Amino acid sequence: MDYSISESLQSRLDQTQAILESDIYPMEATYLKGEWQALDEMLYATRKKVKDAGLWAPHLHPEDGGTFTGLVDLALFAEVLGQSPLGHFCFGCQAPDAGNAELMVLHGTDEQKAEYLAPLAAGEKRSCFAMTEPHTAGSNPTLLDSTAVLEGDEWVINGRKWFTTSADGADFTVAMLITEPEANKHSRASMILVPLDTPGYKMIRNIPIMGHEGKGYFSHAEIEFKDCRVPATNILGKRGQGFALAQERLGPGRIQHCMRWMGIAKRSLEMMCSYVKTRKITATQTLADQQLMQAMIADSAAELAAARALVLETAWTVENKGFSAARENIALIKFYTANVLQRVVDRSLQAHGGLGMTDDTILSHFYREERAARIYDGPDEVHKISVAKKILRG
Amino acid sequence: MDYSISESLQSRLDQTQAILESDIYPMEATYLKGEWQALDEMLYATRKKVKDAGLWAPHLHPEDGGTFTGLVDLALFAEVLGQSPLGHFCFGCQAPDAGNAELMVLHGTDEQKAEYLAPLAAGEKRSCFAMTEPHTAGSNPTLLDSTAVLEGDEWVINGRKWFTTSADGADFTVAMLITEPEANKHSRASMILVPLDTPGYKMIRNIPIMGHEGKGYFSHAEIEFKDCRVPATNILGKRGQGFALAQERLGPGRIQHCMRWMGIAKRSLEMMCSYVKTRKITATQTLADQQLMQAMIADSAAELAAARALVLETAWTVENKGFSAARENIALIKFYTANVLQRVVDRSLQAHGGLGMTDDTILSHFYREERAARIYDGPDEVHKISVAKKILRG
Amino acid sequence: MDYSISESLQSRLDQTQAILESDIYPMEATYLKGEWQALDEMLYATRKKVKDAGLWAPHLHPEDGGTFTGLVDLALFAEVLGQSPLGHFCFGCQAPDAGNAELMVLHGTDEQKAEYLAPLAAGEKRSCFAMTEPHTAGSNPTLLDSTAVLEGDEWVINGRKWFTTSADGADFTVAMLITEPEANKHSRASMILVPLDTPGYKMIRNIPIMGHEGKGYFSHAEIEFKDCRVPATNILGKRGQGFALAQERLGPGRIQHCMRWMGIAKRSLEMMCSYVKTRKITATQTLADQQLMQAMIADSAAELAAARALVLETAWTVENKGFSAARENIALIKFYTANVLQRVVDRSLQAHGGLGMTDDTILSHFYREERAARIYDGPDEVHKISVAKKILRG
Amino acid sequence: MDYSISESLQSRLDQTQAILESDIYPMEATYLKGEWQALDEMLYATRKKVKDAGLWAPHLHPEDGGTFTGLVDLALFAEVLGQSPLGHFCFGCQAPDAGNAELMVLHGTDEQKAEYLAPLAAGEKRSCFAMTEPHTAGSNPTLLDSTAVLEGDEWVINGRKWFTTSADGADFTVAMLITEPEANKHSRASMILVPLDTPGYKMIRNIPIMGHEGKGYFSHAEIEFKDCRVPATNILGKRGQGFALAQERLGPGRIQHCMRWMGIAKRSLEMMCSYVKTRKITATQTLADQQLMQAMIADSAAELAAARALVLETAWTVENKGFSAARENIALIKFYTANVLQRVVDRSLQAHGGLGMTDDTILSHFYREERAARIYDGPDEVHKISVAKKILRG
Repeated sequence: MDYSISESLQSRLDQTQAILESDIYPMEATYLKGEWQALDEMLYATRKKVKDAGLWAPHLHPEDGGTFTGLVDLALFAEVLGQSPLGHFCFGCQAPDAGNAELMVLHGTDEQKAEYLAPLAAGEKRSCFAMTEPHTAGSNPTLLDSTAVLEGDEWVINGRKWFTTSADGADFTVAMLITEPEANKHSRASMILVPLDTPGYKMIRNIPIMGHEGKGYFSHAEIEFKDCRVPATNILGKRGQGFALAQERLGPGRIQHCMRWMGIAKRSLEMMCSYVKTRKITATQTLADQQLMQAMIADSAAELAAARALVLETAWTVENKGFSAARENIALIKFYTANVLQRVVDRSLQAHGGLGMTDDTILSHFYREERAARIYDGPDEVHKISVAKKILRG
Repeated sequence: MDYSISESLQSRLDQTQAILESDIYPMEATYLKGEWQALDEMLYATRKKVKDAGLWAPHLHPEDGGTFTGLVDLALFAEVLGQSPLGHFCFGCQAPDAGNAELMVLHGTDEQKAEYLAPLAAGEKRSCFAMTEPHTAGSNPTLLDSTAVLEGDEWVINGRKWFTTSADGADFTVAMLITEPEANKHSRASMILVPLDTPGYKMIRNIPIMGHEGKGYFSHAEIEFKDCRVPATNILGKRGQGFALAQERLGPGRIQHCMRWMGIAKRSLEMMCSYVKTRKITATQTLADQQLMQAMIADSAAELAAARALVLETAWTVENKGFSAARENIALIKFYTANVLQRVVDRSLQAHGGLGMTDDTILSHFYREERAARIYDGPDEVHKISVAKKILRG
Repeated sequence: MDYSISESLQSRLDQTQAILESDIYPMEATYLKGEWQALDEMLYATRKKVKDAGLWAPHLHPEDGGTFTGLVDLALFAEVLGQSPLGHFCFGCQAPDAGNAELMVLHGTDEQKAEYLAPLAAGEKRSCFAMTEPHTAGSNPTLLDSTAVLEGDEWVINGRKWFTTSADGADFTVAMLITEPEANKHSRASMILVPLDTPGYKMIRNIPIMGHEGKGYFSHAEIEFKDCRVPATNILGKRGQGFALAQERLGPGRIQHCMRWMGIAKRSLEMMCSYVKTRKITATQTLADQQLMQAMIADSAAELAAARALVLETAWTVENKGFSAARENIALIKFYTANVLQRVVDRSLQAHGGLGMTDDTILSHFYREERAARIYDGPDEVHKISVAKKILRG
Repeated sequence: MDYSISESLQSRLDQTQAILESDIYPMEATYLKGEWQALDEMLYATRKKVKDAGLWAPHLHPEDGGTFTGLVDLALFAEVLGQSPLGHFCFGCQAPDAGNAELMVLHGTDEQKAEYLAPLAAGEKRSCFAMTEPHTAGSNPTLLDSTAVLEGDEWVINGRKWFTTSADGADFTVAMLITEPEANKHSRASMILVPLDTPGYKMIRNIPIMGHEGKGYFSHAEIEFKDCRVPATNILGKRGQGFALAQERLGPGRIQHCMRWMGIAKRSLEMMCSYVKTRKITATQTLADQQLMQAMIADSAAELAAARALVLETAWTVENKGFSAARENIALIKFYTANVLQRVVDRSLQAHGGLGMTDDTILSHFYREERAARIYDGPDEVHKISVAKKILRG
């Protein structure tokens, strides 16, 4: 075994951390205040800096416009970037664009790559991913009922989706649609590329989530397709492959999500440590002298270290032994790290007392927004049942 | 022993519940959208209805303008009203006004009662309570350093406070100020009434909390006193009694807080039950058929029932044996019920899946705003240490 | 509401506590060493003292030979007695004899009462309850397959049972047997009285549990019926009523079990408090000065107080409103208090350090033996699912 | 990074697993019944087999009589062997002998190695480690007060120790004794080798732990030194180095303990999976179909996988970067894995229902004996505080 990190990788991770501290953390106040215009300017300025530093798009191979060097390496970048809600965007590897790009790399036609992937990878276009529906259970995607019917050389799309992250202002979406209603339940859906200026597409609203509608990239929309027509060639992969592709998209996406959460947990723990050391509670003592604070720090450090070790082991296994060798771990890390994240953020907020409730720190944002980690991409309960069945079979 | 509830009390509780359902729940969408003007109109219309129904101010004796019939009864009203963030306000027993009124009933001079208590009890004025300071640890109030110095027949007040709930638009505040800097640490502070149009008082900002600044009654301000002068007669109680009065204020307030939380937990649990029964996950099954949902319901029901039983027992003890007989329980229920609240809300949100993250239900509001329950009036950690010391001594 | 305890009840509870401290705690070392002969002599001597004090059999009405004054009162006795594993036996209300006696009071014929109940109530005979089977799931009693077939005027019994508590040395058993194999699943079983000197009955072994086989009253047997014949009149209640009677037996039994656990938790918490106050960890400090010990004490006190309040409320409801009004709570308290018990014992053991692992205190006995509380009378999981279904229906 | 295991190591691990299954698991019933004589014969027969297979003493370098190939490798052996309470003994790497041997390898004189290490390494002698005292807090070893005074060329030893594991039948002990009472608190103790046939040494009792005194290797004694004299040359290392050596002994010992616990957790989880698959709860369903069982399996698998990943990362760090680079992790894994162990064993026992309480499986042994994992080598609380202070400093 060998857990060492190469010097060159370490140096690029350090560079990334430096940009985070110099450019990205300072933007967060603007983000928390919802000053979207000002924020946008800062974000694109930082993107330029990142490109100049040769750190752009760590999830894409150089031939696709990025700086990918391996899945374990990407995991480590995801951890660093995850420390800020603005990190991934500045480095061009933000969800859902990153997943959409990865899909097109694997399954896009040359035309699709030229028209959709290239500008996406370059950060010139934004996209979204339309899967979850308000009226069907997100935990069971085989219930999806939005449809695309092939009429001549066009798909005619009808249906409603929500939690379509970043639809507001996006250029196109990848939509999961029932194209083979008679097929068995795992082969009913296909993925279709839909430019968002197509007639029949409508963004109904940005869903207010935890008190905010957000805006632009930082939003989650409810959208509608009404007789929305796109060329037959806009299908991604083959007919009926929708779920198979979604599975693929989830695999490496899972690693990145989990490491992003580890980054959030790491920053929350560091904030907790910094705060308790400075917060006076008597003339001579700070919160850091309190055993109950110490226990919260120790528990958080242990849970974080263990979860992180497991995610890295999983990344290594996917990279070196293939996805199916890691299938069990891929499911375990989803719910396990999401819960570690929630506990660490909760403890850090608690240690900050009243300040933790305010937007004077990033913690209350982590507390409310990242609660979703235990829900999206499959709620805890679904993953637990599914992984247990795998284990019981195996 | 006798756990029965009189028919007349039950009937008034049922009336209260009916108003909640007919008038108050429907306002919540307006509240969640932050449409403050529209909300205000609805709130005051409902207050009129409540007064007409003879249910106004369940915390105040009839001679003080209310409908109080006992602490256990009040606890039961607090539970019903707690189900909505708007409940207490509509019934005129909202914090911090309720606590301020209770203080003045016990310690106000006739002049103070006429000028401050009467309009407060009638819902014609609003007040706030200025205690916590941004630069001193809220968990140790003996560190407070805002001062009031008697110059002639005026108090000259200087200092900064935050988390001054509802300061925005309030008419006066009760401020906790150091008046006896040389006294022992528990006798240094006094409570002083400060009209908020007094020169030298300034509201700096409504603190953004969990993403929102709020407005009017629904806000938490940072405020400043700079050579702010009020008459010497504005002191509440005696010099140096500030902490003693604060303790008194906390006692019955604690019961009401805890029962309000029980109301939130009760509603969250009921929402969870309703939702899982209707949410289809296959052609023939709903979420209610899932054991993991059932276990979340059973755990929540048990924790809620046990916590509620303890709070009611505590209320009865305070009412019948006095505060000191209940001192240990008063501390236990603070952290215990706050944690039950957090767990039940969290489970209900989880059961709602993506919907739970949105503002389409009240749950995400409970999740983010009521996180403060484990912090204000003393964080969990402070109560645990303090009650353990009591137990170890006793 | 009224939570007060009458003076006369309090005085009898105090007497009970006094006998516990003077006579019963001192026997525990003998019990822990497994010196059964010596223990028996002490136990029966204490029983005499209890009878002389007029405290014998608090679960039975005076006409049945006891001192019962109400279910809430009984609950309070169960709590005091539960503090020692020897308490209930000394007061003549030990499981499974108490439950068997309660059954016969309600459903026994005059002949059965004379032959079985009278000596049982007087402490002259011992009994057991044969229900669980090694080869069928204890969590689903409708799977039971031991049978009794009526041949002429005799029941012919065949089958195997285990966890038949106290079979070793008992005089008779109440056995749950399938008598109506064709009936619907809840009407297949009957309860039959079987004297243990009947040919065809055999005690196979005392099951080693947590390292010990125990002996006599303090044991759990595996037993076998092979063509074991008893008179037709030995049926308790009517044919097919077995499960209905078992339900009845569980109701008040549940209250007593839960309060017994509260007694164990109470003693464990008191031991923790005593120990940490005396255990020096530096020249000037004891464990009691450690916040982490304080938090363990506070958490335990809160959980215990809440669980206890709920059990008493449930007992009051059963007593005053009937079993069906308390059905939901009856299920909640089973798993809820069993888990509180486990956590409190675990914390007390932890606070005792190495000493907690030894048999130099009663704690390690509580730790290992009372682990069963989460399993017998229905494992946590079964109760959670069942109560959730009740709640979802209601 | 590289998480792969060499083929030759994997093959030796497989061989080890095979011996466990063919020879060691079958002995456990004898062990659980306390048939010590019969057990001893089987154990030594298996030791011979292990030696013949070239797998003896994986913790010692070949020149010291073992088969050590690295700390990560040893960790993996510890995991396999840990699955049975008899595993380490059969492979000659059982505590406390393994730790004592490691100490002598590093600090023993040639004479000490010849007299004590050689027969210990060969499995011809047994030893114990006398440190904890009944009257001083185990969590603060600087309070130790047993003494050794140099009189002429002999140490004169006085004091009392307990939890001296395996003293019964051992040939010698390593004793931690105060030799420099005036030194600063971390330099007061030395380690001294004491043959147990020395006059003045007395084994007072095997402490009854969780209901059993055990015997021979499988016991924990209370012992006494009264004017017990050994040669001055019996000191291990230098005067006053006792704590420094104990620290060294703990380091690699920690890894082995933690991996042993991972082995126990792994076996418990596998037993849970096997059992639920076969336990029928209805005509068509087994426990494996129950979501609550599935969730217990998933939670256990996740916690185990994460804890294991962290221990292996820690082992790698100690081996490749040195102890001080791993200091924080060394503390984290102690309490973290001990708690994972306890939870996994508890869930497996619960899944086994009544059977889990019996000695018909190894689970109840794990449940009661391994509770000590959260206490010995420093209770959870001590490690949490100590690691938090490290983190806060760092």
